[in-house]
Amino acid sequence: MTMTLQTNLKSVFTAKDLDFKPAAKITKKDLNASVTKAEYAVRGAIPSRADELKEQLKKNSGSLPFNDIINANIGNPQQLDQKPLTFTRQVLSILEYTEILRADHEKLASLNLFSRDALERAERLLNDIGGSVGAYSHSQGVPGIRQTVADFITRRDGGEPATPEDIYLTTGASSAATSLLSLLCKNSQSGLLIPIPQYPLYTASASLFNAQVLPYYLDEESDWSTRSDEIEKVAQDALEKGIKPSVLVVINPGNPTGAVLSEDTIAKICLIAAKYGITIISDEVYQENVFNNVKFHSMKNVLRKLQHLYPGKFDNVQLASLHSISKGFMGECGQRGGYMEIVGFSQDIRDALFKLMSISICSVVTGQAIVDLMVKPPQPGDESYDQDRQERSIIFNEMYTRANLLYETFSKLEGIECQRPQGAMYLFPRLNLPKKALDESERLGIEPDEFYCTSLLESTGICTVPGSGFGQKQGTYHVRTTFLAPGTQWIQDWKRFHEDFFKKYRD
Amino acid sequence: MTMTLQTNLKSVFTAKDLDFKPAAKITKKDLNASVTKAEYAVRGAIPSRADELKEQLKKNSGSLPFNDIINANIGNPQQLDQKPLTFTRQVLSILEYTEILRADHEKLASLNLFSRDALERAERLLNDIGGSVGAYSHSQGVPGIRQTVADFITRRDGGEPATPEDIYLTTGASSAATSLLSLLCKNSQSGLLIPIPQYPLYTASASLFNAQVLPYYLDEESDWSTRSDEIEKVAQDALEKGIKPSVLVVINPGNPTGAVLSEDTIAKICLIAAKYGITIISDEVYQENVFNNVKFHSMKNVLRKLQHLYPGKFDNVQLASLHSISKGFMGECGQRGGYMEIVGFSQDIRDALFKLMSISICSVVTGQAIVDLMVKPPQPGDESYDQDRQERSIIFNEMYTRANLLYETFSKLEGIECQRPQGAMYLFPRLNLPKKALDESERLGIEPDEFYCTSLLESTGICTVPGSGFGQKQGTYHVRTTFLAPGTQWIQDWKRFHEDFFKKYRD
Repeated sequence: MTMTLQTNLKSVFTAKDLDFKPAAKITKKDLNASVTKAEYAVRGAIPSRADELKEQLKKNSGSLPFNDIINANIGNPQQLDQKPLTFTRQVLSILEYTEILRADHEKLASLNLFSRDALERAERLLNDIGGSVGAYSHSQGVPGIRQTVADFITRRDGGEPATPEDIYLTTGASSAATSLLSLLCKNSQSGLLIPIPQYPLYTASASLFNAQVLPYYLDEESDWSTRSDEIEKVAQDALEKGIKPSVLVVINPGNPTGAVLSEDTIAKICLIAAKYGITIISDEVYQENVFNNVKFHSMKNVLRKLQHLYPGKFDNVQLASLHSISKGFMGECGQRGGYMEIVGFSQDIRDALFKLMSISICSVVTGQAIVDLMVKPPQPGDESYDQDRQERSIIFNEMYTRANLLYETFSKLEGIECQRPQGAMYLFPRLNLPKKALDESERLGIEPDEFYCTSLLESTGICTVPGSGFGQKQGTYHVRTTFLAPGTQWIQDWKRFHEDFFKKYRD
Repeated sequence: MTMTLQTNLKSVFTAKDLDFKPAAKITKKDLNASVTKAEYAVRGAIPSRADELKEQLKKNSGSLPFNDIINANIGNPQQLDQKPLTFTRQVLSILEYTEILRADHEKLASLNLFSRDALERAERLLNDIGGSVGAYSHSQGVPGIRQTVADFITRRDGGEPATPEDIYLTTGASSAATSLLSLLCKNSQSGLLIPIPQYPLYTASASLFNAQVLPYYLDEESDWSTRSDEIEKVAQDALEKGIKPSVLVVINPGNPTGAVLSEDTIAKICLIAAKYGITIISDEVYQENVFNNVKFHSMKNVLRKLQHLYPGKFDNVQLASLHSISKGFMGECGQRGGYMEIVGFSQDIRDALFKLMSISICSVVTGQAIVDLMVKPPQPGDESYDQDRQERSIIFNEMYTRANLLYETFSKLEGIECQRPQGAMYLFPRLNLPKKALDESERLGIEPDEFYCTSLLESTGICTVPGSGFGQKQGTYHVRTTFLAPGTQWIQDWKRFHEDFFKKYRD
C-alpha cells in the first residue's frame, strides 16, 4: 500500500516544480529572543545532568559512586516520600469512573475501598461539573467549586467575605502567574518588582513578556525578611529611570527562602501598592507548609483589614493571590490545579483577563476538583476524617523532622550558613566557599555555586539547584535543596561530600 | 481575634505614612495591547450571552421561548451526548486510586467494574509514570507514553518510523500551538500563514505574540479546499513587503470547515515549506473524525514520502504535528491532553522548545495517560475489546447521522449553502442574507452573521458562533455549528427559526 501511494505522489510535481534550492533551516537567531533568553534553573543544566546520570545507572548500575539520584531540585513531593491523601484519590477515582456510583452497594462496601463521604463528595462534584470531568468547564472554572474556594477563603480570613466571581480555577499557580503577567506587562517600560532570591518562574516570565525585572533583595541576615523600605526605594529608582513599577511579586511563604511574612510587613507592602498603584501578585502556594510557631497571613486578609481601618486609603489596591494543589498536604503536582483570587480589579481588566483565560478554554477539570478537596477536607464526623487527619499529620511531621535534621547538619559544617526553616519545602543555605574553590570554578568557566552543586551531584547523586538560578546578592553563593527526599542517608552523604570538598579546596 | 489583629495593625503606620494620595487603578490602556486586541469568538459575546440565558432559565424556567441552551458553539462532546469510553475511564480510575490494584481480587471481580486489561494497563502506566499521577513528570512527558505515541505514529504512517525523542506530551493542542508560536514568532515582521476560515486560537496567538497574520483563503466553492498556489502567492507578497513568512498553519481536518486535505495538496504544502523555509504547524486534532470515503493523511507521512522520493529536496522541512485527546473517540476535553511531534528541527531549536516547556514544568499526568489510551486502544483478544469497539461505533454513527441530518436540513432551506461534511465536528454553512437583514444588522451596529446568530440564540437557545469569529471572505457570512448536540428537536427548531427569519427579512 505504501508503494502505491508513493507512486501517486510522484505525479504531483513537474521537474520544474522541483527545480528549487531548499531554504536554510531556522536557527536560534530566528527565534523569539524573549523566549531564548528566559532562564529556568529548576529544570536547568544540573537537573538535566542528573537525568543523564539516572539513565546511566539504569544501564550500568555499578558505574557511579552512588546508586540513586536524589531529586532535591524541585518541590515534587509524590516523586519522593509523600503519599497522596486517600480521600482525595477516592473522590477522583469515582469522578473518573462514575460506574462506581452505580455498583452494587453491598459488594462495594465489602471491598472497603471507598468511604461514604468520598462517594457523596464525588456525587456533589459531578453535579457541579455537569456530569463528566471530560467536558470543558466554564473558562473561569466550575461555579460550584469556585463557591467552595470562596467559602474557604472567608473561613481562613476570619470572616472577610470572598466571592466566587473573584475566583479563577487555573492549571496550577504557574499558569495563573503567566496569564496575569502577560496581561499586566504592557511593554518594555513595565517593571516587575521581584524578590531576590525568587522562584525563577517570575524572572522567566518577565523575559517572556519583555518587562523589566526590578529586583528587591531579601535580607538574609534577618531570616530572609522582606523590607518594605527596600521595595519602595526600588520602585522610586525605577520611576526616575522612566520605568513604571507595574507589578509587585510577593512569595509568602518564600521560595526558595522559606521565610514567612509578618502581618506588619504585608501591611507595608499594601501601602506601597496603594501609593504607587502597583498590582500585587501574592504567591501563597506554600500557605499550608508553615512550621511551629509561625503563622501564615494572607495578603488579602491584611488588605481587607487595612481597608476597614483606613477607609479610602487602600481601596485602590489591586491584588491577585495564588494557591496550588501541588504543595501543602495535597502535593498533587502532576494533576495541575490551583486557584487565583483577584481583588480590586476594574471590570475592563476582569474582562480582559477572562478573555485571555478563555483562549486556553479551561483548566483541567480533575485539577479543579482537587482544589475543592484541598479547601474542604473531611470534617469531624465524616467517615474519612480520622484517616485523613492521620495522613496529614504524617506528612507534616516527616517534612518538619527532615527540615530540622538538614538544618542542624548544615549548622555544624564549616563554610555553610543556614536560616532556621519557617515554611515552604526548601532550605537555601549560603556557601562561604574558599578561594581555591572559587579559582577552580573560574577555571571551569562556571559559577562557584554551580561548581559546588555539580560536584555534589557527581559525587553523591544529590540533585540541587545553585543559588544563581534564583538570584542572590553579588558575591554570595547559595544552594537550594528541598527537604522532601526520604530517609537520612542522603543527608549523611551530603555531609561527607561537603567535608571532603572543603578538605580539597580549603585555602 | 480579628479585633486584636486589627488593633495590632493600627500601630504599623504613622499619620505621616498614611499621608498619601492613593494612586489611580489601572485601566485597559495600562494592559498589554497584544492581549487586549486578541479575539476569541468560540467563547466570545454570543456564548457569554448564552451563559446569561442559562442562568435566567435556572432562576425562572418559563421566562424564555425555549427550555434549554443548546451549546453548538464549541466542540465539547462530553458536555453533550458523547459518553467517555469505558476502558479509558477504568484505567484512569485505577491510576487515581491505586488501592484498587491491591483490593481483594475475587470481590473486585464480582463487582464487574474493572476489566483485566484495564488493570494491566494501569499497572504498566503507573510503572512508566513512576508510581503516582500526582508527581510532576519529565517536562517533555512520561518517556513510556512517548514511546506508545511513537509506535502509534509508526503504525498509522505505514511504517515510517517515529521516535519518542520527537514527541512532546502537552496540555492539549492549544498549549502546544501557543508554545510553538511564542518561540517561532520572532518579532512583528514574522508572518503566520493562517487559513481563513480558521480556529481562532491561531489569530489570537498571532496577536499575543505580535506576529503578522498572513491569511490564505480556503476555497468554499470546492468544498473549502486548500490551494497551494494561493498560499505561495501570500508568502511571496509578504516577502515583498519585508515580512518573513515564518510559520504555515494547516488544520486538517479543517476547523471550522471540516475539509480533509488530499495527499497531493499536502505534498504541495511541503514544497512551499521546503522552498521558503517556512515551519509547518499541522493541527491534526480531528484525525479520527473523518467520514465515509474520505481518508486522513498525516503531514508527517507525506513529508517522509517526499523525502524518500526526492532526496535532498525536502530534508530542510520543519514540521510540528498536533494531536489531542479532546476530539475523536475520546472527547476528553476537560482532561486536557495531547501530543506534538516535531520533525526536522535542529538541536538548538529543540533545546529552546524544551526550555520553554520546562518553565510550565509538565503537562497534566492523567492527560498524558489518556494520550496513551487514545493511541493504543484495547486490541482483539483483550477483555475490553468488544465493548470498546461498540462504544466507538455508537459515537461514530451518532455524529455521522447528525452531521448528515443537519446538512440535509440546511440544503433544503433558502439563503443557506452548506458543503457536505467530510470531517471534524462542525458545519460552516454560508448565509446569503437578504438586504433587509443586512440593513437591520447595520442599524444594530453588529456584523450580519452576528445578527443571525444572536437572533437564533434568543429565539431557540441554540448557541453558535458567527463566521466573523473564524474569518471569512469580505461580504460573505457564515455560521459555525457543531453537530454534537443530542436529538433532532434542535435541528427542527433551527429550521423553523430560519424560515421565520427569512419571512421577516425577505426583500
